[in-house]
This record gives sequence, structure tokens and C-alpha cells, in this order.
Amino acid sequence: MSTTTNDTTPRHENPNAAEPLGAQADVDVLRAALDGPWRDLRERVRRELPADAITGTPGESIDVQRERVTRQVLALADMGYGSIGFPTEHGGTLDYGASCVAFEMQAFGDLSLLIKLGVQFGLFGGALARLGTERHLSAYLPDIMSGRLMGCFAMTEIGHGSNVAEVETTATYDVETDEIVIHSPTVSATKTYIGNAAKDGKAAVVFAQLVVPQVGDVPDGEEESGEHGVHALFVRIRDDEGNPMPGVTIGDNGAKGGLPGVDNGTIAFDHVRVPRENLLDKFGGIDETGAYVSEIDNVNRRFFTMLGTLVRGRVCVGGGSGSAAQKALAIAIRYGDQRRQFAAPGEEQEIVVLDYLAHQRKLLPRLAKSYALRFAQNAMTSRLQELEDAAKSAEGGTPGPDHEDAQRELESWVAGMKAQTTWHALDTIQACREACGGAGYMAVNGLTQMRADVDVFATFEGDNTVLMQLVAKGLLTEYRDSWGDLDIAGMIARVASQTVEGLVENTLKRAGLQKLIDGATPRNDETALDSRGWQESMFSERASHLLETAAMRLRKAGKDNGFEVFNNAQDHILAAAKADIDLRVFEAFQDGLEAMEDGPARDLMAKVFDLYALSSIEEDKGWFLEHGRLSVARSKAVTTRINSLCGELRPRAVMLTEAFGIPEGWLENDLIDLGQDRAGVTR
Amino acid sequence: MSTTTNDTTPRHENPNAAEPLGAQADVDVLRAALDGPWRDLRERVRRELPADAITGTPGESIDVQRERVTRQVLALADMGYGSIGFPTEHGGTLDYGASCVAFEMQAFGDLSLLIKLGVQFGLFGGALARLGTERHLSAYLPDIMSGRLMGCFAMTEIGHGSNVAEVETTATYDVETDEIVIHSPTVSATKTYIGNAAKDGKAAVVFAQLVVPQVGDVPDGEEESGEHGVHALFVRIRDDEGNPMPGVTIGDNGAKGGLPGVDNGTIAFDHVRVPRENLLDKFGGIDETGAYVSEIDNVNRRFFTMLGTLVRGRVCVGGGSGSAAQKALAIAIRYGDQRRQFAAPGEEQEIVVLDYLAHQRKLLPRLAKSYALRFAQNAMTSRLQELEDAAKSAEGGTPGPDHEDAQRELESWVAGMKAQTTWHALDTIQACREACGGAGYMAVNGLTQMRADVDVFATFEGDNTVLMQLVAKGLLTEYRDSWGDLDIAGMIARVASQTVEGLVENTLKRAGLQKLIDGATPRNDETALDSRGWQESMFSERASHLLETAAMRLRKAGKDNGFEVFNNAQDHILAAAKADIDLRVFEAFQDGLEAMEDGPARDLMAKVFDLYALSSIEEDKGWFLEHGRLSVARSKAVTTRINSLCGELRPRAVMLTEAFGIPEGWLENDLIDLGQDRAGVTR
Repeated sequence: MSTTTNDTTPRHENPNAAEPLGAQADVDVLRAALDGPWRDLRERVRRELPADAITGTPGESIDVQRERVTRQVLALADMGYGSIGFPTEHGGTLDYGASCVAFEMQAFGDLSLLIKLGVQFGLFGGALARLGTERHLSAYLPDIMSGRLMGCFAMTEIGHGSNVAEVETTATYDVETDEIVIHSPTVSATKTYIGNAAKDGKAAVVFAQLVVPQVGDVPDGEEESGEHGVHALFVRIRDDEGNPMPGVTIGDNGAKGGLPGVDNGTIAFDHVRVPRENLLDKFGGIDETGAYVSEIDNVNRRFFTMLGTLVRGRVCVGGGSGSAAQKALAIAIRYGDQRRQFAAPGEEQEIVVLDYLAHQRKLLPRLAKSYALRFAQNAMTSRLQELEDAAKSAEGGTPGPDHEDAQRELESWVAGMKAQTTWHALDTIQACREACGGAGYMAVNGLTQMRADVDVFATFEGDNTVLMQLVAKGLLTEYRDSWGDLDIAGMIARVASQTVEGLVENTLKRAGLQKLIDGATPRNDETALDSRGWQESMFSERASHLLETAAMRLRKAGKDNGFEVFNNAQDHILAAAKADIDLRVFEAFQDGLEAMEDGPARDLMAKVFDLYALSSIEEDKGWFLEHGRLSVARSKAVTTRINSLCGELRPRAVMLTEAFGIPEGWLENDLIDLGQDRAGVTR
Repeated sequence: MSTTTNDTTPRHENPNAAEPLGAQADVDVLRAALDGPWRDLRERVRRELPADAITGTPGESIDVQRERVTRQVLALADMGYGSIGFPTEHGGTLDYGASCVAFEMQAFGDLSLLIKLGVQFGLFGGALARLGTERHLSAYLPDIMSGRLMGCFAMTEIGHGSNVAEVETTATYDVETDEIVIHSPTVSATKTYIGNAAKDGKAAVVFAQLVVPQVGDVPDGEEESGEHGVHALFVRIRDDEGNPMPGVTIGDNGAKGGLPGVDNGTIAFDHVRVPRENLLDKFGGIDETGAYVSEIDNVNRRFFTMLGTLVRGRVCVGGGSGSAAQKALAIAIRYGDQRRQFAAPGEEQEIVVLDYLAHQRKLLPRLAKSYALRFAQNAMTSRLQELEDAAKSAEGGTPGPDHEDAQRELESWVAGMKAQTTWHALDTIQACREACGGAGYMAVNGLTQMRADVDVFATFEGDNTVLMQLVAKGLLTEYRDSWGDLDIAGMIARVASQTVEGLVENTLKRAGLQKLIDGATPRNDETALDSRGWQESMFSERASHLLETAAMRLRKAGKDNGFEVFNNAQDHILAAAKADIDLRVFEAFQDGLEAMEDGPARDLMAKVFDLYALSSIEEDKGWFLEHGRLSVARSKAVTTRINSLCGELRPRAVMLTEAFGIPEGWLENDLIDLGQDRAGVTR
């Protein structure tokens, strides 16, 4: 069937619904709450992008898909989507956060297109804009934003994906010719999985170990070797005719698990020379005397500062995967709301599958989590923008150490959200596929390509497990900073008192003295399960307990057993990181809910929040029971309440997906045309 | 790199291993244990099938893949793989169980090929052989086994996938012409997702509602309507030139989420006439007077008997997905054993990623579960063969009611195993993909295509959730049969006593009177975690408790609230079904272990078993804590022990995957050639 493009009118009038649904007005209120601070941009995208600008046809060959995606990228650039978030003085439009929101909206379309847009305008253009200086921006940004200059972000190598500080490509300054020589000394130094490399890229921002033979003063400790760590350089990789530049070898990664429209490839350099000016030298450069200069003394700190400015990539990847999950839910819930299978004994008509508890259980908690993650994504994007604004208005243009702390803190949050949201998306799209049965497996219905595309989101822009490790590292550092002045004995006492408290609580409760405890600790069993305060205490106490006990374990690490102690506690550390991100998501949902005006939409949102909070608790009920945070009776009550919430939300499930505001035309699937799916429809 | 085809020599000499590995002899012993009763056939397949007979090239177009798969099917038929499991009097070879084992082995190759083989020889050929009678077998089997007659299994319709008893296609006997008229009265009656339909199928076994206008005596209750329920018919769908037969409309399902080499399509019938003899009439037919005759009186029972004879399809799908999971583990564990990333502080060389606990945690419990499922699969296949043999040797050729009970019981087991193994495979292949990072996403490395192909295994040959429901139904029926003579009060008393026992145990334990309890119940905290008896009690008590309490809840169901009571308990019922399958898997592993001779291989196997058992317990620790089966201390001890088992098994991880015996040449991936992946290898 074909639907009118960009019709976002809710279609929640559902003949199968057990009770009347919320009004159109309620959908609008929900949508506004979910849209968050960049609502205008979201509405503009919904209104202005026709389906053919944003969607693809699954099943076409790689060549056809690549051509289509390139065409769409250029068309979107023509519509101004290439310039969002770039500095206005160089022709950029809107603000930095807006570029993340545009990405989220584009993620409702074809994900090959999304990633190609991300490579061109986010990674390639973004790295140039944030690591380069005035001369780079004025020379290249206009052509990048228009798509006339397509380029790559050449960081990952065969030998180093996660540990990019150890890439092997070298960039050696040749003082004689005032050039820098880019070289791949080994096979494993080959850049790989690089988007835009196989077909379209004319240039690349190449990350390489910068070596500057010793001239004049250089930062401490770096004099001897002349090695200044990883830096980025602008390098032409193809000439105007599309042939590789001399010394550049380009390969094609070929077929991948997904993203068929993205031309990922390999790039190797054989002593390729570029002018000194091609070094993107915002954080470290080579002056006219051939000396290395940087305001940041430490090699590692310098590199992580550079990476930190590129944090937007992870914000986008997380947000994009969140959109994909929302789209999958919109498809599967609509299907489940129409598809019938098996009649109850004595009944003529078969049952709508979303009326089955097991089906609700598959879809509705994931829907609730999608709401939660959207609020968290909005909060994170706002924070990104705040820090951006603060940096811009900082005196002398250089933000102080507080800003740097805030930046590190944001990076940690972003890392964790990227990991949690991409995993959520994979899990959700798969559940949606299965919930649609064979129809879900047909490429035309959009779910399988989406699942295949999102797969790699879990490992690119940072491997999820490594990112969660990063979150943990941030937490532990912060923890050490706060508690550093406590001696070990004090620390033990503190943690022990916590543990003893838990133990007593636990023991008494299990001993049947429930009421006694309940009187003393109103936050527990007698508090309603929908008490936000109780829910919050569950999330926050888990986070702090896991962090404190992880820190305790790591204190045992000495010089000789450092890796062993760390490694033995790795599951614990990762759990602490996850608990922290879960708490942040909870808080963001709470803020989002509180910002809503009283009314039926807010009441509905509160139920979605309950479902999110209780499902999260149930998922980890083993931990809560182990740590005396849940009594046995209450643990079972949580499950019972989730089931009843599923029943309560079920009649509003379609409406809740309409609040995502995905234009009908973009839901390129046959599932919407359910007529043929109903038994008995005459041919 | 290219490896010698069919070199299954273990390559476990690993320079990174922390301790010496088991001898080649141990790998052989493990492999023999895993190979089970059809070891000879497995060894024959390993020896005789070259890689190009069994593997494909990912990323090729659908047309190219379909052609390749068709070619491979015919070549395998030439080698005799089409005749395995068919009746020997019609040219079949080996036994019925062997056909399942051949399928499992072929699942180490390309899965499009696997499914095409399954459609042709298992579904199409199998349905004809088991639902047809002598005249059908002698007329068609030779051509089916040779691949000269390609065909379809046309059961699923647009409107009915799970509830196939309600397919809408009709097969109406026309007494005037002695023909049967096949017709699709509605759009939703169109057969869909049918393998072999889009390109190769010349015929189909079509499932349709049989209507025989009233002539003579017919079974009770069916006289009025002449409707005898779903039957299967042999129908030509294409002529020898490949054109659709008159009245047959064939469509192409086109691109799917995976299985690109399988030509799934749609078939609709417009009053297509076939001779009466085309009715596959083993369980119900039309005699020469035009009267319907069947030895089975009840319409439903008749249809479920027919479906029951087709249980092999589910055995195969489960087994095939299990093989895919094993292959994914072989790839990811080998990669993890070589790939290095991040150096410990002060170290020069980076750490092998499988040395990280988090990486072990991702892969080793899934490896252990793969072992468990293989033993269960072997046991199930043996049981299938036993019942087959029993049926054949039954007096008068008709097995008695005991056999029928055994058959129902097998079907339930098969349903549950199919669901659990396919879900395990999806989860495992995904974890393996992520564990290989970007390399895992490259199609050439085999993981993504495998993941995409296996996806549909979760919903075809029975939707997994529906299958688990079937397991539950079987359990509850059996339970009712055993306890049917108890009155409700007796039942309540029994369950209540269980509950009280749990409660007391729970309360006392949590109250710190651990030792008192432990003295009384040696099975608990003081029993070693590797006590097989304790582990078994955990699996079996969970299964019986969940079943008993589910049965209690369903007793409340009356005529008016039947669906509601059932639906509210659906999550509970599904948990009971899963617990039952988990117990069966545990028991199969136990039997498999016990059959091994004492020695290092058996000791190693016992550790793998511990890891499987404890990981399963940990996964559901919330339930065990809730039900007083785990104390808090013991729950934490389980986690600690899993971590230490991961460390103990890690040096043997590669060897444990070698025990699967996947020929090197079939592991069509670059991951094996790890040279380029190592940093510093000179170009």
C-alpha cells in the first residue's frame, strides 16, 4: 500500500481496543514531551523530508544501494542538512545539539544513509572542524557541507580498534621539505572499516602517530623520541577523477552484516607526503621553525582531549539506534494490534495477539524503556550544548578546569548511554521481528535490515564493553577523588556499615518480621510500587553500593597484581557502570515527567515510567534480593504489577508509538496494510 | 588464507595459553562424546564433503545465491544425501535419526543450502513419505531423493502461521469427476514463505481443509458439514517447462532477513483440479465410492497425528541452529585467543582479549550451554529413532496407545528444544559477532550471514513462544492425568505444604540459622557447588514447583473466565515450560558425562557441565532466591565460582571448540588468518 508521505496523524482508532483511547491532544502532549528542546527541528524534519529522500529499498545490490545513498546524501546537503551544527561563521546553521537531533530523526529512515551522513558531516567534517584551525575550516568546510568534498574519518586500523592510542600509522615531519610523511609501516597499520573510503572519499582525516624530529622546545618527556602521540591530518586520498593518490592504496571491505549502502574500505599509505599545514593543529602543531607546539603537556591527555571533542559521534550513534528501536516498536505494535491467531475455546473470532500477556511482555517493557532512553538522550544532548555554549563564552576562549571536569563527566555519560541504547535497540528490534513472525522476516517490512544495520552500532564508535569500562573508570576516579582523604580503615568502616545495615534488614525481613521493618523503613514493602521515591532509592542504592564495593576490591591492587585484581572484578565493575547509567536514565525520565503539565497525558506517561522502573528492577531482581533491597514478597509483587501495567497500557500501545512521531511514509512496510493479513478477506 | 579442506586436526597449540593443554587424545574423546550415536555418519560427512559442496560466498546477489544453492542441492543428492532417512524399500538409506544428524552436520555450512535441503528432502519429501501411502511413495520418492522433482511444503498462509488448523485453502471432492478441487478463497488463504516456490518447485504438498460431500458412512460429528479438517495433497504447481500450472498463481517473497539462497514464495489456487489419488491418505482418505474414511475419529486428533509425524522438522531446525552456534563459538574463541588489545600498565605487549574476564563471560558460558544442548539433541534424536523402530515393529503395523503417549511426549520435548536451541543460537552468534568487533561484522567472516539466517529459525517450524506454550500444555495435561484423582482440597494441601516448606526453609535460612538448616538439608549451602546432586535438585525442584503452582492457578479457570485466567498466568506457564526443558537438558548432559570413561577428558567435561549448570542457575537466581532455593551467600558464591571456572576453562577454550569437529575448510573466514590482525606484522 502507499500512504500519504509525511502523514503523522495518529491512527489509533482501533476497533480491537478494549477501552477508549486517549484523545489526539494527548498524543500531541506526549510527543511534545518526547521531542524535548529541539522540537521545532524535529517537526521541520517530519514536515519537509519526503519518504524517498530518507528511505531505501531493502534487498537491492550493494552497488545500487551505494549509488542511492550517495544521491540522497547530496540531496539532503542541498536541502541544508549538511551544515547543521557547523560554526555559523563558516556557513553552518543551527547549533551543535541540533546536529544530534537531526541525526536522530534521520535514523527513522534508511540506516545506510544515516551512517553515510554521519561519516561525511559528523566524523569527517566534525573532526576537521574541531581538530583543525581557521585555515582548515575556511578551506574545506563549504565543500564538505555541500557534499562536493566527500571524505573519511580514518582512525581504526586492522590492529587497533578499541585501543586507538596505539595506531601504527606514522606522520613524520620532514623539516627539509616542510612536509609530513604519512606511512603505514605494517599490514596491521592499514586503516579499515573506513566509511566513504571504498567509493566516494576524496580526502580523509587520518589519525597517525606524529613524529617531529627535535627542534627547539617541546613538551616535557617528549623531547627524546620526537613522538607526540596521535594527531589528525587532512590527506587527499583520491584525485578529482577518483583515482587513488600516489602512495595511497584503497581497498573495499565489500559485503558486511548490514549498512550495504555505506562504502567501507581500507586505506594504506606508502610514504605519502602532505604539506605541514595539513596537520589539524588545534591541540598540537608544528610551528614555522619546525618545532612541535602544544598547550597540553601530556601526550595522553592531549589525545584524549582531541577524542573528547569528538564525543558527538557517540551521542549520535546512541540516539540513532534509539530511533530505530522506536520505529521497530511502531511496526510490531501496530502489527500485534491487528494480527489475530487462535480463538479462545467457544469463540468464533481469533484473539488479537497483543492481547496475549506474553506478547505484551515482549513489547511493552521495551516500549517503556524506549521512552526512558529518549528522555535521557534529550538530557544528554542538552548537556552537550550547554558545555558547548560555556566553552564558547569562556574568557579568552579557553574554558577552565571545571569545564574540563564537566567535559570528562559528559564523555562518561555519553559512553554509557551509547552502549546501553545500542544494546537496547538490538534487543528490541529482534523482539519486534519475532513478534511479527514470518512477516517480520520479509525485508520489505523493514525490521531485518534495521536489525542488521544496527548490529555494528554495538561495536563501532567504541566497543560497548570497552565503553562501559570507561564509565566505570570515570566513576572510580571520581569516587577516589571524593574519598581520597579517607584512610583505608575509614573506608572499610563505611562500606561495612552499609553491608551490616543490609544484612540486618535482610535477616529481619526474611524472618517474617516484615511489619516491624516496614514500620521503620517506610521506603520498603508498605510503600506503593509506584512510589517514585522508592523506585529511585532502588536505582540509586544499587549504583552506590556497587561502586563502593568495586572501589573496595580495587584497593587491593598493588603494583604486581594490578591486572589480576582488576580482571577478577571486571564483572562487578561493569555492573557498577550499568547501574550508574540506569540511574541517570531514571532521573532523566523523572525530569521529563515533572516537566509535563497535569492531565491525562501525564498520567499515562507516569504509567509508562512505572513500567520502565519496575521492569528494570525485575530484570535485576537477583541482585536486589541478594542485597536485601527486595523482600521475596515484594519481588513477586513487582512481577504481578508489571503484568497488570502491561494490561493497562495495552489499549494505548499504538498511541504510545504514535507519540514518537514517525511519518507514515517512512514506515516503509507492508505491515501497515493489514487487510491481507486478516483471515476471510475475500480475494 | 586457504586451509586444506577437511583438515579437522586440532590447532590448539596456542602460544598464549597460560597452561599446557589437553592432548590430542582428549579432543578425540570429547568429540566422540559429543558426536553421540551417529558418530560414523558425522565422521563420514567431515571426511567426504569438500568446502565448496557446503559453503557459500556471502554478499552475492539473491539470484546468484539461489543458483548456487540449487546446484549444491543436486550435487549432494548425487552423493546420496537426498535419500537418508527415507524408507529403504523405496531406495532410502540409513535410518530416520541419521537424517537429523546429517542435517546438523550440513548446518556447519551455508544455511541457505541447509534450509533448501530441509525443504526438499525433509519437508516436501518427508511429508509425502509420511502422510502418503504406497502409491505416492513409489511414484514420487525416487525423483524426490534424486532432486529431479523439486517441491514445496505448502502449509503456512498469510492469515495462518501458528494456528495452521485454521488454514483457509479448501480441497473439495467432486464426485462427478472423481477429482479434488484446490482453492484459495481469500487473499489471506494464499500460501506464503514457501521454500522452493519462487523458482524450483514443480510440485507441492498442499495443506487444505478437506471437504467431501456426504456419501456413505463418515466419522461421527463430521457428517453434516462434510468438513474433515486439514489434509495434505500432492499438487503439481509448475509444468516441465517451469510455467505455473493452470489456476496456480506463484509469487516471489523476494528479499528476506536472511537465507538469500532459498526461493521462498507465495502460491494461490483458483479451483485447481487434481485426481482423487493425489490426496495423501495415510490418516484419512476418500474411497472408491467417494466416501471419506479414516481410522481416527476426531478431526483435531487426526490433524495433530499428521503433524506429529512431521516432528522431525523441528528436531532438525533445533539441531541445525545448535551447529551454527558451535561454529560461531569456534570462530569467536579462536579470534579471542589471538586478538590483543590494551596493554596492562608497564607491559609492552597487549593483552589477549580472551584473558579478560568480561570476554570469557561472554563466550564460555555459551560454549558450555552449546555442549549441554548437543547432548540433549543427541538424546532427543535417539528417542525419535526408538519410537520409529517401535512403530515399525508394532504388531499389525499399528502402535498402541502407549506409543501414542510416548509420541506426544517426544513432540513436547522437541518443541521446547527447538525453541530453546534456536534462541540460544541467536544469542550466541550475536555475542560472538560482538566479541569479534568490526572483523565480526565483515560478511567474509561468516558470523553476520549466519546470524541473519538463523533469525527466522525462532519463528518458522513453529513460533518459539507458541512452542513453549505447547510444552506447557503437555506438562499440564500430564500433570492433570497424574493428579486427576486428587480433589481440589488435596491439591491445595499438597501445594501449600510445598510452599510452607519453602517458607520455613527460607525464613530460617535468612535468619542466620544457616547451619541448623544445613545439617538437616545437606543439599544446600554446605554442599559443594559442583555437587551434581545439588545442581540437579535446583533444576528439578524449580521445574516441579513452577508446574504445580501453574496448575493451581489454572484450576481457577471456569467457563467464563478461561482465557483470562490462562492469560494472566501466561508468563508463569512459559516459565514452567522452560524449567522443564532446562531439566531435560541437564539430565542429558549428566547421561552424556556418565557415559564417558574416567580420564582427563571426562574431568574437563565435568567442568564444562559445572559451568553450564551454574550459569543457568545464576541466570535465574532471582527465582531461586525468591523461592528459598538459594541463600544470599550461596547466590554470590555461584557467581564467584562461575568466574573461576571461566579462568580454569580459558586455556582449553580453543580445544573445546575443536571437539565440535568442524572441518577447517568449512570455517570460511578470515579470522583464522590472524597474522594481519597482530600489530607490528611487517607489510
